[in-house]
Amino acid sequence: MPERDDTISAEERLIARYFRPLATHPGAFGLADDAAVVTPPAGCDLVLTTDGVIAGVHFFADDPPGAVGRKVLRMNLSDLAAKGAKPVGFLMSVALPAGIGEAWIAGLAAGLGEDSAHYGCPLLGGDTDHTPGPIAISITAFGTVPHGGMVRRATAKSGDCVLVTGTIGDAALGVLLRRDQALAKKWRLADAASAHLKQRYLLPEPRNALADAVLAHATAAMDVSDGLAGDLAKLCRASAVAAEIDVASVPLSDAARAAIAAEPVLMETALTGGDDYEIVLTLSPQKLAGFRNAARQAGVAVTEIGRVTTGQGARFLSGGKTMNFAKPSYSHF
Amino acid sequence: MPERDDTISAEERLIARYFRPLATHPGAFGLADDAAVVTPPAGCDLVLTTDGVIAGVHFFADDPPGAVGRKVLRMNLSDLAAKGAKPVGFLMSVALPAGIGEAWIAGLAAGLGEDSAHYGCPLLGGDTDHTPGPIAISITAFGTVPHGGMVRRATAKSGDCVLVTGTIGDAALGVLLRRDQALAKKWRLADAASAHLKQRYLLPEPRNALADAVLAHATAAMDVSDGLAGDLAKLCRASAVAAEIDVASVPLSDAARAAIAAEPVLMETALTGGDDYEIVLTLSPQKLAGFRNAARQAGVAVTEIGRVTTGQGARFLSGGKTMNFAKPSYSHF
Repeated sequence: MPERDDTISAEERLIARYFRPLATHPGAFGLADDAAVVTPPAGCDLVLTTDGVIAGVHFFADDPPGAVGRKVLRMNLSDLAAKGAKPVGFLMSVALPAGIGEAWIAGLAAGLGEDSAHYGCPLLGGDTDHTPGPIAISITAFGTVPHGGMVRRATAKSGDCVLVTGTIGDAALGVLLRRDQALAKKWRLADAASAHLKQRYLLPEPRNALADAVLAHATAAMDVSDGLAGDLAKLCRASAVAAEIDVASVPLSDAARAAIAAEPVLMETALTGGDDYEIVLTLSPQKLAGFRNAARQAGVAVTEIGRVTTGQGARFLSGGKTMNFAKPSYSHF
Repeated sequence: MPERDDTISAEERLIARYFRPLATHPGAFGLADDAAVVTPPAGCDLVLTTDGVIAGVHFFADDPPGAVGRKVLRMNLSDLAAKGAKPVGFLMSVALPAGIGEAWIAGLAAGLGEDSAHYGCPLLGGDTDHTPGPIAISITAFGTVPHGGMVRRATAKSGDCVLVTGTIGDAALGVLLRRDQALAKKWRLADAASAHLKQRYLLPEPRNALADAVLAHATAAMDVSDGLAGDLAKLCRASAVAAEIDVASVPLSDAARAAIAAEPVLMETALTGGDDYEIVLTLSPQKLAGFRNAARQAGVAVTEIGRVTTGQGARFLSGGKTMNFAKPSYSHF
């Protein structure tokens, strides 16, 4: 071991101890340079996305640090999956309050390390600051697609089927349960159901296993992060089309179904609350069987929920009526 | 004009009004997708860097918003310049307190737009959140270099000359003047000198005009953001070499020279305070004349300040003695 070098700052020591082990990409230079380098394979484009979390806004200050790290990485992985991109790596900016303690940083790095290995998305570099505000972590993630192949929002076609992965609304209900434990009783939820919804908020399941199938089959796709209703409206607007969604066919977990049975108004929460990190996509009816087969092989549940039509707006039809949402999409402003 | 669409959130409206005009890169898709796409030219690598600012830490809350935007973009451009990379574009995460007001956002976007056009570095995408904490802006910038050509920290050679661009220490003195106006009198500074130092803190001058010359001539380089002493120590450590710096030859502005003449201890502040956003680089003595010529053509002042030697550590020699720094490098931890 070299003797202690006083020109090495505490910041460098923290980075070397906790974050360098995650920097397994050769272009990260062991986090010992100003910048990182990536070389997309010949014939590939690089897909770039950024998403972040702030304590008290996107997570609870007492959430385990490992879960916080995994959530913010997964939020970015979800964007890559929806675009049909294969992860390459990520950059991370971390702003931490002065009294945070090294155990929190160690926990953050452990969670990030677990997911970065699982999803094949190593740390490429970053930036670490103290802040007088709450913990804030911003990640920029990189992926590759064949040149010109990124699956866009703006390319849905009238007549396409609309599908969604997994289940919708769990996290939106889970965060309400986190804020007010008494709701579990009001919603007549079993402990396991309540725990399921809260877990879906704490730790989303990005659908990167489905990325190749999205790339091969979808006309358009996006990740559902601000609520299915608002996000599908964005996709329709970008594509200059409309969509008709059969609310009865929107996939719900047993836990969400139980809560909505007890409080039917929660269906609106499920469709507009956000934090789903599922993929909504459109594809030609001719591609439906092939896509279903690919999704089965990838182990990701997919559900057809409606059709793309001409016109504008995403209509959610329930019992023959169009639902009206007070606030179709999560918005910070 | 289309009629108001209630499915468009306030967040989308702000982004469309203020940030979409900056998204001139075709791969930004007008900020209307989950992700952006870049395709490095054949034979090129993509260089990635990230750096951010937090109000009260990296800038003053009453700084003009345009200057804040320009500073954080320039901090990232400085990293690209030091690596010999040509800017491609940037992603930006913005966290804003609830009461910020649209004028601040408009000012931020105007400053960013000015520099993004000047440096040829368009907005590719981003993320906008409300925060209960201070204003925080994080940028990830992208550049290109010929494959394998990124100028690294770890490749300085014993016998190389050490050079630095511009002048050192202005911003470190400027931030002290911002915090305590009475210092201008204590340091016997004329108003213009005081204004110069404060301006150098407010708005760094990244040396992107020199990037090609750095790429063609330097053995190693990095941007000076945490203080020349600490940053050169990092470069030496990464390269497993030492450096001897002649403090008398470190380039100072007239304003910094006046302050140091009044308070000689400020030389340590100048060498260790940070926020310079100059480039420190090493090159073979055979390349010195060619580099000086290229720098002259680029309009960037460069000064030889010492030599790379065998051993370890960066020694700053003043009057035949090695200076000892209480804190050689800015560190957040």
